[in-house]
Amino acid sequence: MSELLESLATRLRLLEDREAIRDLIASYGPLADAGEAQALAALWAKDGIYEVVGFAQAQGHAAIAALIEGDTHRALMADGCAHLLGPVAVEIDGDRATARGHSVVFRHGPEGFAPYRVAANRWTLERRTNGWRVVHRRNALLDGSEAARILLTPAQPAS
Amino acid sequence: MSELLESLATRLRLLEDREAIRDLIASYGPLADAGEAQALAALWAKDGIYEVVGFAQAQGHAAIAALIEGDTHRALMADGCAHLLGPVAVEIDGDRATARGHSVVFRHGPEGFAPYRVAANRWTLERRTNGWRVVHRRNALLDGSEAARILLTPAQPAS
Amino acid sequence: MSELLESLATRLRLLEDREAIRDLIASYGPLADAGEAQALAALWAKDGIYEVVGFAQAQGHAAIAALIEGDTHRALMADGCAHLLGPVAVEIDGDRATARGHSVVFRHGPEGFAPYRVAANRWTLERRTNGWRVVHRRNALLDGSEAARILLTPAQPAS
Repeated sequence: MSELLESLATRLRLLEDREAIRDLIASYGPLADAGEAQALAALWAKDGIYEVVGFAQAQGHAAIAALIEGDTHRALMADGCAHLLGPVAVEIDGDRATARGHSVVFRHGPEGFAPYRVAANRWTLERRTNGWRVVHRRNALLDGSEAARILLTPAQPAS
Repeated sequence: MSELLESLATRLRLLEDREAIRDLIASYGPLADAGEAQALAALWAKDGIYEVVGFAQAQGHAAIAALIEGDTHRALMADGCAHLLGPVAVEIDGDRATARGHSVVFRHGPEGFAPYRVAANRWTLERRTNGWRVVHRRNALLDGSEAARILLTPAQPAS
Repeated sequence: MSELLESLATRLRLLEDREAIRDLIASYGPLADAGEAQALAALWAKDGIYEVVGFAQAQGHAAIAALIEGDTHRALMADGCAHLLGPVAVEIDGDRATARGHSVVFRHGPEGFAPYRVAANRWTLERRTNGWRVVHRRNALLDGSEAARILLTPAQPAS
C-alpha cells in the first residue's frame, strides 16, 4: 500500500510540475503587456537569460526588467500590443525542463492590428527553492532562418 | 497515513480545479465560432457578466446568448471568423479564481484573414454547485489604453 | 480506504489523460515548423487520418510525413512560417477523446508576417498501447463555411 501511495504521489508531483511550468509561461504575455517589469523578470532565475536571437541578450532580473522598461517595449505598449503565446510542448527530466512553442506580438496602428513579430521559443527551466524558474529563453523570428527552426526541434528523440 | 491521503486529495483537487477552469475558457472560442449561443452562455453563472469595455455589457444567460445570436456576431460568422485565445494565467483562492490572457478575433475578407480585434481579458470565476462558472469576463482592446493593461495585471503581487 | 485510494487513482489518471492529449496537440505546431516529419507523423496512430477539408487527406505515417516533406510545406518553411494553435477543449470518454480548437498559420513575406490560414480543428484521439494517438484530425478554413463551424461544435450536448 505504501508503495502504491508513493507511486500516486510521484505521478501527482509530475502533473504539478507540468502545471507550474505551463502557468509560468502563460504569465509571460500578460505581464509583458501590463508592463509589469519586476514580476516578469521574476519568472526567470536570478542568473536566467532571455535571448532574442540577433537582437538582444539579457541576463539577470535587472537586465530582463530593463527590456520591459526600455524604449522599444514602451513604444510598443503606447501603440497597443499583445504578446500572444501558443501552447507549449513540455519535456521534464527531474529538476530540469524544456518547453517549445510560438509567440506572436500584435501591434496596433492606424490601420488596426497586425502581427509584428512571429517567433519560435525554447524555454529551459529549472526547479529552484522557490519553484520552477526560467534559466534560458531563446526566441528567434520564424522568417525562414535555421536558427528559429532549431528552437522548435525536440530535445530528445520522440519515442 | 490518513493525513498523507488528505494532502494528496487536496493537491489533486487543486489540479482538477485548474484543469476545469482552463477547459472552460478553452471552450469559449470554439463555441463562439460554432454559433452555439446557449452552450456558450452556460459557461457563465446565471448572474454572470460579459463586459466588452466601451462596447457592450451583458448579464445573465439570455443576454450573453443574445450577443452570439445578434447581428454583429452573425455578420462575423458569415464572413468567417476565429476567436483564438491564448493560454491563461490562473490564480485560485478557494472557490474563486482569476484568469488572465489574450483573445484575438481573425476575420475573413476578400484579401484573406486579418486580426480584427486583439484584446486583454480578465476572467473572474466561482465554484458553483454545477462546477466552475464565469461570474465576470472583462475584455478590452489592446490599443494602447490603460483599461486593457489593467486587466492583465496580476490580482495578487507576485511572490 | 482502498476505495478512496482507487478513487484518487482514477481521478489522477483522468488528469494524466488530459495532460497527455494537450501535450500531444501542443507538439504539433513546433514539429511542423521544425520540419520534423517523422516525429510529427508519430503523433497519429498508424492508421490515423489527417484531413484538410477541400485540400488533402493523408492516412498513415508515411502519407502524413509526406505532407511535411512535400513542396507546399517546404515552400512555407523557406519563407518562414508558424503553425500556432489555440488551447483545445477536450472531452474524454474512456479510451477515446475529442479535442476542438483553432489553428493559425502565419507566413513571412516581403511585407512581414500575415495570417495565411485560419482554421477550425477537430481531433479524435484514442488510447493505444503506446499512449494517446490521433486517429483523425479534421481541419477546415474558417472562411464562413459550414464545414468549419461543424468541427467546433461539441460532440456531446453541454451539461
